[in-house]
Parts: sequence; C-alpha cells; structure tokens
Amino acid sequence: MEDYNMKFNMKARIFFNKDLTAAEEFISKLIEDANKTILLKGVPQNRVEDGARISEWSIQRDELHLRIVSGRYLRAHSALLRIHKLLAKEIGARFKTGARSMIIDEYTATMNLPSNIEFSIPKIPAVQSIEQADNALKIYFANLDETALRGYEIDRAIKLIQSLTLPSLTERVTKIPPGTIIRRSKPREYKFKEDPTIKALELGWLEEFPGKGQFFYTPPITKLYEAIKTIFVKEVGEKLGFQECLFPKLIPLEIMDKMRYLEGICEGMFYCSAPERNPEFFEDLKAELYVTRKIPYKKLRDALKDPYYALSAAQCEPFYNYLGNKTIKIKRLPLKYMDHSGYTFRYEAGGARGLERAFEFQRLELVWAALPEDAENIRDETLVETERVADEILELEWWTEVGDDPFYLVGRFSEDQEINLPDVPKYELRAALPYKGEFNKKNSIATSSFNVHGQHYVKNFSTKTDKGVDIWTGCTGIGLTRWLVAFLAQHGFNREDWPKKIVELTEPFPEIPDISA
Amino acid sequence: MEDYNMKFNMKARIFFNKDLTAAEEFISKLIEDANKTILLKGVPQNRVEDGARISEWSIQRDELHLRIVSGRYLRAHSALLRIHKLLAKEIGARFKTGARSMIIDEYTATMNLPSNIEFSIPKIPAVQSIEQADNALKIYFANLDETALRGYEIDRAIKLIQSLTLPSLTERVTKIPPGTIIRRSKPREYKFKEDPTIKALELGWLEEFPGKGQFFYTPPITKLYEAIKTIFVKEVGEKLGFQECLFPKLIPLEIMDKMRYLEGICEGMFYCSAPERNPEFFEDLKAELYVTRKIPYKKLRDALKDPYYALSAAQCEPFYNYLGNKTIKIKRLPLKYMDHSGYTFRYEAGGARGLERAFEFQRLELVWAALPEDAENIRDETLVETERVADEILELEWWTEVGDDPFYLVGRFSEDQEINLPDVPKYELRAALPYKGEFNKKNSIATSSFNVHGQHYVKNFSTKTDKGVDIWTGCTGIGLTRWLVAFLAQHGFNREDWPKKIVELTEPFPEIPDISA
Repeated sequence: MEDYNMKFNMKARIFFNKDLTAAEEFISKLIEDANKTILLKGVPQNRVEDGARISEWSIQRDELHLRIVSGRYLRAHSALLRIHKLLAKEIGARFKTGARSMIIDEYTATMNLPSNIEFSIPKIPAVQSIEQADNALKIYFANLDETALRGYEIDRAIKLIQSLTLPSLTERVTKIPPGTIIRRSKPREYKFKEDPTIKALELGWLEEFPGKGQFFYTPPITKLYEAIKTIFVKEVGEKLGFQECLFPKLIPLEIMDKMRYLEGICEGMFYCSAPERNPEFFEDLKAELYVTRKIPYKKLRDALKDPYYALSAAQCEPFYNYLGNKTIKIKRLPLKYMDHSGYTFRYEAGGARGLERAFEFQRLELVWAALPEDAENIRDETLVETERVADEILELEWWTEVGDDPFYLVGRFSEDQEINLPDVPKYELRAALPYKGEFNKKNSIATSSFNVHGQHYVKNFSTKTDKGVDIWTGCTGIGLTRWLVAFLAQHGFNREDWPKKIVELTEPFPEIPDISA
Repeated sequence: MEDYNMKFNMKARIFFNKDLTAAEEFISKLIEDANKTILLKGVPQNRVEDGARISEWSIQRDELHLRIVSGRYLRAHSALLRIHKLLAKEIGARFKTGARSMIIDEYTATMNLPSNIEFSIPKIPAVQSIEQADNALKIYFANLDETALRGYEIDRAIKLIQSLTLPSLTERVTKIPPGTIIRRSKPREYKFKEDPTIKALELGWLEEFPGKGQFFYTPPITKLYEAIKTIFVKEVGEKLGFQECLFPKLIPLEIMDKMRYLEGICEGMFYCSAPERNPEFFEDLKAELYVTRKIPYKKLRDALKDPYYALSAAQCEPFYNYLGNKTIKIKRLPLKYMDHSGYTFRYEAGGARGLERAFEFQRLELVWAALPEDAENIRDETLVETERVADEILELEWWTEVGDDPFYLVGRFSEDQEINLPDVPKYELRAALPYKGEFNKKNSIATSSFNVHGQHYVKNFSTKTDKGVDIWTGCTGIGLTRWLVAFLAQHGFNREDWPKKIVELTEPFPEIPDISA
C-alpha cells in the first residue's frame, strides 16, 4: 500500500437548538476527553499523530465551531461524525438541547505523491480545486452536506485521485510483463496479400451498409463464417463441456455499472432508449415526417426516455448477473456456459476499419465460474484448444501473448475492498495479416482473448458461496468475425487454397448472384 | 379514387423590383390569357371548373395582389407557381423588373368527406386549423414559404388528412376478409395445461433479467430452441433454396424511414445513440459515477448524439436496402436469402408478457425478390413447408388465417404514386395455447407470418430492373421464440412426451445445474 502521508484540516460548525454558553465547561471536558479516546479509536499506538484531534473550538450562541486536524487513520470528516454523535447524546441528555445539522466551512486534504508524475484530474463531485506542488497535492473540498459525508463521497474522491497518480491497475496486477509472447505457430507462406475487406466488397461477398462499421454479409462469406463458427463451437466449446445458453443483448445500465463498464468504456458503447409514453406526440412526429419527408432527429430525441440500456459490448454481462445475488453451491462448480446468439456492439467512432474493427460483430463467448485454481485451468484449456484449431484446422499463423488491457480492469480505478486477482488476467491470440507486411503486433489482429477475472465480478454482483470460500469467474471471447478476417487475409478467396476441413464444411458453396445490371 | 370535390381559395402577393402601375394593362391581358390557357393546362375539357382561375387581382405599387380559386386538377398553390413563372418572364422582359418573392396571405381548402365518420387529426406542418361540419372539412393553411410550396408539403398534408378519413389501407387492399381461416391442423389432446414461461422460470430453464421482456435462457431451453431452429432452417429455408446471410441489426433511421417504420411503429422500437465526441465530459461523468455511485442518467442523455439508429424490428430491413438503388437483372431472379444471426427487438411498453411477447426475440427470417407471380408462389411454398413442420415434426395444433395487420402497410398512410400490391398481403400461422383454454384467436399465439409486399419496398428503396418490368418482394418471419412457446405450451416440459424427432435433436439433454444454495 502506498503511503501518501495524508493530512486533513477541517473547519466545521454544529448547530444546536439553544444557546450553549452554559454548557461551555462541560463541552471543554468532553472535547479534551474525546481527543484521547474516540478520536484515537482504531489508530495504532505508534501512529497517534495519524489519528484525529480537535485543535481549536469555540462557542458562538447556539453554534459550536470546531477545527479538526487528522492523518490517515481517522479522517477529519469521519471524526466529525463521531464527535457529532457524542455531543448529541451527552449535551442532549444534560442540557435538553438537540444537536441539529452540521456545516463544513473549509476542508482540505494534502497528500504526498509517489513521484513527480504528470496526470490530469477530471471534475470530481465534492472537490472544488486541487493544487499540485513539490510532489504533493492539496485538495480543497466544497459543498459537503451530510449525505456526502455519510455516503463516503469524500473517501471515494480521494481514492479516485490517488488512482490517477498511479501506474494502471493492469501493470500493477499482471505478474508477467504485458506483451510477452508465450507461444507461437510455425511460420507460413502466403499467396494472397490483399486487404480481405476490400476484396470481399469487390467480389460482392460483403456489401456496404449505410451505418459505419457495419456490413451486409452475402451467402459466400456467410457460409465461410458458419463453418468457422461451427468449428469453434464443437472443437472448443462442446469439447470442453460448455453448455449453450441464449444471453440477452440489450443490457440495462445497472448491469453495465456493476461491470464497471460505465467507468471503463463509457465512450465505446451504444446506448438505447425506449420511446416515452406519449401517443399524441408521436402522431405529430409522424405527421411532420410524412409531410416534410425529413427525419425529425431532434424531435425524436425529445420523445425518448433517458437511456436505460447499452448494447452488449462484452457479451458475458448476463452471466455475472445470473450469478449475482446467489449463494452458489461449491459442489456444483465449475459452471461452464457459452453463447453465440447474436451480435455484440462497440462504438469505435473514427476507429472503424473494415471487418477488422467493426461496430457490430459476432463472437463465441465462453464463460465459467469455478474455484480459483480451476478457473485458471479452464482458461488455459480454452487457450490450448483454440491454438489447436488455429494450427490444425484453420492452418493459420498466430502467437499468444500476455494481454495489456484486460477489458474488465479498465473500469476498476481502484477499490474499496481488496480483491483477489489472477497473476495473468488476460492472454490474447493474435493472427498475422500478410497484407500489412511482416508478422508483428501492428500487422496482426487480435482474434480471441482468454480472461480470468478473479473476484472482480463475483464481488461486484454480490455472488456468495455456501462454504464461504472464494470463487472466480473467467471468459474466453472467440471473435468469429476477427477469425474470418484472419482466415481470408492468410488464405485468400480461392477455395482451392483453403484447408481441407473448411472446403468440406463450406459444401455446397454459394455463388454470389450477379444481380446488378 | 374517392371524389372529395376539393376546392381551394388563396390570397397571395408577388413582389416586384419596381412600381407596376405602368404595367397594369399588360398584366390585365396576361391574366385574362392565363385563365384560359396555362391555368387550365392538364384539366379535362368537361371539368374546366376544376382547374384554377385568378378571380381577383390588383396592383399596389410594387406588389401584385391575387386571389386564386381552384378545384382538384390544378390546385391554387400550383397555379401560383405557374403564374409567378409567367409574370417573371413576361414582365421582366418588357418592364425591366424582376418578380421577387411570393407571400401567401390566406389559403383554405375544403373537401367533402366520404361519410360522416369520426377521426382525429394530429398536428400537421403547414396546417393551422381544420373545421369539420356537414360531411365536409375546411383546412386553413399557414406559414407557407416557397420551400413548402415547391416541396409538395401542402399536397402531402392533404393526402394525410384524406387517409385519416378512410378505412385502413389493409382493409382496402386485402381481397379476402382478414381473419379468414384458410387451413387448420387436426385437433390434439393436451396433458400439459400451464403457462410455459412461468413453468420455465420455476424449473430454472429461464431466469429473469432486470430488463423487462428479456430472459436469460439456460442450457435446457436453449437446447430445445436450437433443435427448433435447426428444423426450420433445414426443412423450410434450405429445402426451398434460401441462402444464409448475416443481416445487420443496428438499423440507421434513414432505412427505417424508407421502411415507413418511423410512421408505422415509431412507438414500438428501441432507439440507439452513439456518445458525443467529448472525452472531457466523459471523464467528469465517470468521476461523478465513481464518487456518488449513482448512474447519472440525465447527464448521460446529454452526452449522447441524436438517435441515429433503431434496433432491427422486422429483421428484413437490410435486404430491401441491399436491393436499393440497384438495377436488378431479371434473369437472376428469384433471389432467396435467409437470416438468423441474432435478436430483433420490439418495445412493447406495458404489453410485455413472458416469452410470448418479449422485447428481445429470435426469428428465422426468409426474404425474396421475384416477378410478382413467383413472389406469391414462393410465399405459398414457405407457408406449406411451415405447416408441414408444425404437423409432422413439431406435432402441434395450429391454423393459418389471412392477416389483419400486414406490418409493412402500417406506415403507408396513402401514397403519391399508385403501387402494385398483392391480393393477400399477409398470412399468419397461429398455434393453440392450451393453458388459456379452447383454441381460438385469443387463446393462441402468432408463430409465423408470410408476407408479399408487392412494390412497396422496391419503390421506397428505388430498386429498378433491367427489363423495366415490376418485381415484388416478400418475407416470411418464423418466430423461433414463439414456436418455442407453442411447443412447450402444447407438449410440456417432460421430454418423454415430446415428438420423436425433437427428442433425438435434443440429445444429450442438459440438466440445469442446481447451483443456488
């Protein structure tokens, strides 16, 4: 744990129902006593200076003015809550006056930085401003009401600021350096060296769609896609005992929040809204559309509810929700499910690039819940079988590396509770794209990722077990659309050059009807 | 065609660059002449009273004031455009003054109604108010600028009003009364009489999802679903030569507009938006979420672009777009594609009811383009094969009726051009739901619909042919989720009671792991 040597300094007032002058002596004793007891409770003996202390106080009619200074063990705002409770009880009993509300007039926190690094800080609720100087930060809080105090907003704001000054969680967690190649196929020769998306469009295997990052797949490429999908379902999913499910694809934001996706990839998702219940408004909107023949985008926007959903971005979201708020019987584990029931979606803004980086794509998603060691073994099995398919059936050139961006850690700035994470959160299998040149990271495509999440999701979704032991989850995302790209990029569009098994599975092979005059 | 005996009465002004007093005599002759020529052009000899006529006019400095009255053959606003063009040319040449802008000061249209029916009229652009009396309507137009005149807004507003006074287009088009049963299975006996969704939830075959109208399908029900899907793909799709494609599911609104879905089922779709390109805003939003732990729905709404997409509601939308703006080679027809690449979506608001009426559901969609007679034959073939599957493989009780709500006609209020539509736009196959009681419309579920659209889509999407002949499109939607409901409602959850073929196809049948303590 980093030592930020945090110091807090607060000016606050507690309001009572009547003048406190008569209680001055009593209060003086109470505070002197509190400084030695409740404001040091839970503070290690040798770190008394990191507890809290009321350093100044005065009475002004019905107000008690306080200055509280503290270190990390009892932060001044927590000390204020303790002292408020104590005074309410003791003064209330003896002087027949209630302690009403509190106001924090000034509150600052200072912390040392681990090093003099550069970072930027967003607008954070409860934080008025931040000054950086001499490897230290000074945080000025403002607008703190009791809800903010009791809701831990200050603590989370501090956590957030600390996490922004640290190397990413991935770097801290991953025990093998990200990017390390752990296995690779033998090299291969390529006849075909074109961009498969461009070629597929030329041949009519794909057609453009007005939506960016989307395509209409005509029969020939669909046949190939189905062959690749069938292989992975059978040779990885079914072989390893994964059972098929149908996962929803329209994901309520409350689930995306538990996924930490709203923090992690907020800008990378599509959001969905249902129409407001307002038939008259829609009649007007339809009439306007009919008469003007222009889509009233703005008017439509106003006719929608707040966004309640995002389109599935990870495909596995419903699985963690399925486990959520359950007490799992350990003896029933491992649980191994798979889904290939439809598209998932990413908003890539300007980053869309052919089939390689589409807005809408197909994936075979394998998910599991198991004891920690089993969870890692299952992940490794899916990796081994996927590599086997790549070698023996699809006959592709690939490597497997330690991933540098485990998707599920992106939204986890830092945590209130310590959670158990695996040594390698993610492996990634990348395939060569010969049209880009020599096989290296830049000239390749990530076709699958193999993830163990440790307790990340079981904690976020409140999953428990009957034996009180930890369980972990994992997911392997086999990017079917990405494999299709890798296959066509390495083998080309001439079926005679394709591996035998794929030729068999794509029989009878459809012609694209040359329909356009 | 209905005769509304339409009459128009307009007061308008045309503005010139200089005083017209000197041109008065010349203008007088021009108008007298126009009343006999260009304002009667295209008007039948025996209907001269239904042409247009300038009934009054005067000159006020640089303004020419006009009153134009007309019938249906040349509407007053079209007459104004003609007269403006004539004056601009003739007066311009002789008196060296340009005809500048026009203003319409008053404009009313009156029309007889076919009968004294009740109807309600939405807010319509260009229409200020409407009075109804004595089987007639008087329409007051307002805010008419030149764009509105030249953009046909007035004509479309009139069409819309006329269509609202008519029986629905479905009733007008369909030659066999909607609801007529054309074929039915033999009756069957049922052991099972429960609601299959409730039973499936009890058994853990389904799990609730936080999103209304959505479910998590666990392995047993997924296995049954896959069996049903495989049967329809093979026994209807592949048997009849349909080729598989992958259709996008995120549909740009410009396509939904051409579908006439924005007019037809505006309130029944989910709308999607991408995030605005504003990284700073999202950093703030994430910080707020992290610190307050509340999803900032309103803030998120403001962070999104206008809705650009709807989620696929019909599944076949991409096919008409694929045909769009093409000149199709007639000799390559028929074109027969199918899609089962993922969910489609309907927003049912309060109407959600178990698996029967879900927000998110699976369908096998068959689509085709062909010469009109072929298009009807293909539809009939898909119907016959579907009925065969229902009888011989799924062993269900069903009937087929003439549909009363062809989905594609809902948004077609009326049309500017006459289009060719089939005698029966839609058949619907309904299956019995024994838990609801005796097999009748109310106690049944629509499992599939069989549609021929005539020229509806090829016109809307500007599809042409090389031979100049008409082609039609059609689609058959096989509601896989609905068939699943019908199957479980009639056969129950005990596999020993299932038809032989389904037992075979669901081997090995997964247990639902009893994971919850």
